[in-house]
Amino acid sequence: MTQIRVLNQAMVKEVLSLKETIQTVEDVYRGKANETSTLWPMIFYEFDPGKADMDIKSGYMKELGIYGLKLVSWYGSNPQQQLPALFGTTMLFDDQTGAPLGIVDAEYITGMRTGAAAAIGSKYLARADSETLLMVGTGHQALFQLLSHLLVIPNLKQLLIYNPLAQEQAAAFAANCKEQLLHLLDQPKIKEDQIEVREKIAQLQIRAVEDIASATGEADIVVTATPSKQPLIQADWVKPGTHFSCVGADMSGKQEIDGAIFQQARLFVDDRNQAIAVGETEQPIKQGFINETAIQGEIGEVILGRVAGRISNEDITIYDTTGIALQDLAVTKQVLDAAKKNEIGQVVDL
Amino acid sequence: MTQIRVLNQAMVKEVLSLKETIQTVEDVYRGKANETSTLWPMIFYEFDPGKADMDIKSGYMKELGIYGLKLVSWYGSNPQQQLPALFGTTMLFDDQTGAPLGIVDAEYITGMRTGAAAAIGSKYLARADSETLLMVGTGHQALFQLLSHLLVIPNLKQLLIYNPLAQEQAAAFAANCKEQLLHLLDQPKIKEDQIEVREKIAQLQIRAVEDIASATGEADIVVTATPSKQPLIQADWVKPGTHFSCVGADMSGKQEIDGAIFQQARLFVDDRNQAIAVGETEQPIKQGFINETAIQGEIGEVILGRVAGRISNEDITIYDTTGIALQDLAVTKQVLDAAKKNEIGQVVDL
Repeated sequence: MTQIRVLNQAMVKEVLSLKETIQTVEDVYRGKANETSTLWPMIFYEFDPGKADMDIKSGYMKELGIYGLKLVSWYGSNPQQQLPALFGTTMLFDDQTGAPLGIVDAEYITGMRTGAAAAIGSKYLARADSETLLMVGTGHQALFQLLSHLLVIPNLKQLLIYNPLAQEQAAAFAANCKEQLLHLLDQPKIKEDQIEVREKIAQLQIRAVEDIASATGEADIVVTATPSKQPLIQADWVKPGTHFSCVGADMSGKQEIDGAIFQQARLFVDDRNQAIAVGETEQPIKQGFINETAIQGEIGEVILGRVAGRISNEDITIYDTTGIALQDLAVTKQVLDAAKKNEIGQVVDL
Repeated sequence: MTQIRVLNQAMVKEVLSLKETIQTVEDVYRGKANETSTLWPMIFYEFDPGKADMDIKSGYMKELGIYGLKLVSWYGSNPQQQLPALFGTTMLFDDQTGAPLGIVDAEYITGMRTGAAAAIGSKYLARADSETLLMVGTGHQALFQLLSHLLVIPNLKQLLIYNPLAQEQAAAFAANCKEQLLHLLDQPKIKEDQIEVREKIAQLQIRAVEDIASATGEADIVVTATPSKQPLIQADWVKPGTHFSCVGADMSGKQEIDGAIFQQARLFVDDRNQAIAVGETEQPIKQGFINETAIQGEIGEVILGRVAGRISNEDITIYDTTGIALQDLAVTKQVLDAAKKNEIGQVVDL
């Protein structure tokens, strides 16, 4: 019999800070580039195509001494019954004994690690003097994206908010944005020293935009996080030096920026195979704008200095982040460690 | 947030009876033959070949309204640290909403469902007048095998116990066998009416054997449950009408009975692909004794009456049971339902 810790979403929020998440996800990218971690084959099953499916993503992280899996189920009609559309559960095991370590709700962690991932792309690839960020999409991911970027982009001063479907949502989001960012910053009970970020948020200029073409031209960094299947941003709107972190594309057919942008850009990905199969990189290759050799490298190789990221201030850079299971496992370990230290969670005998 | 039930091995033992397990595993075989259940690809990883590995087996059972997975880790050196060599954990989800239902220790359930599986083979394939059972192997599985057979073979009167490596272990096992069978029968707190089985156990003749050749000639049913990689039973020892339930072979290279027996026998399996890849059926095919067409059918087809099992009292029959994840999922559901009804287990918010 062994004791394991079970953490629901409220407990995860008590211990998980975005700042630490960013550090952990960077370590994951380093580990991936150093081949000290292993992704196992994904299992995907559709109970009712387009209405209900599930996937199991799993892997082994030698450096962290853990292996495990995340099972995510999506049932589109759940909200009609006052249930969440997504249920996600992560389970970790100790690689020295095989003993189970914990079971943790995956939803909030997925949001945090996805925000962290895109911001790391911007940290290593955007211009050092980047001041203006255009956020395309105002859904679940937007706040995680913005706070992550505030934590890693030193000179960020202006946020432009765009919603491709509903302008009023962009306006509403922009109006509440500072308050929501501070709330997200304050979420964990275990406080970090965040005075600097707090001041940065206070001084931010935040504006909803209707004209995506001119907003693109203003932006130093563009983050796209929508479920779009058509390009929302055209190549001739983009000024030299712009960086894109593309978050939305995580399954075949999704696309957020025009393939022609790829022809002018230096392209980086989180996982080569996954980017080609299901990422923002998929459509530009299928449409013939680029081929696979356009991928300069994985972000872990850039972080380790093995592959050059941005070369000049005029470069357009793209980071295609599809999301990998190792991020979930590593952040879940971080959460379990913090919960143990702070005696948070439900401890049960298994 | 959703409530789930967490059950450790002690809790599983409180609610799980072998009689119900046999019914559940029979239903699993029916469901498999009716194609109302789906096995997903297995994930297998060796941390240190021959010393530590893990596998994830998963699937979907539409009839039971569940899907899920069992993760089993094996660390050969764990016992040196007073830890179990195997850790197994099963997780179930509701197929109507995707919500997690429970997390259950898998070890005892694996033992029970494996005993049930072999006994179901004997129930449908052995001669109706079978009285003598030869148990080859006295490890963890032996008791589950014997009690399962006592529950389904009406005229069982004599048990012959053989250990291929250590005769004294067979003698010790035989000496304690009745007591242990009664203990296993009494394990669940939720009692079933077992008077008949109790009387049967009291009247059993149990004998350790040294001469496996003559014991084989005496037996109506032979159950093999060892980790052997060489045949332990030769073809010319076997009398007409004998039934074999072969349990031990669950990975490539394992073998318990001689390939020549397969040439004279009607052969049945739990899962065709798995039997050929890793079951007792693997070596006789690789050694050229038979080919795949020798498999008469899966046991579910026999149970449903779609494929003839034993045709005459002279037939030699073989049931190759490799173990399938659907058994674990179905028995875990049975356990969770019984635990809920009897308010057993640790309920946590996930």
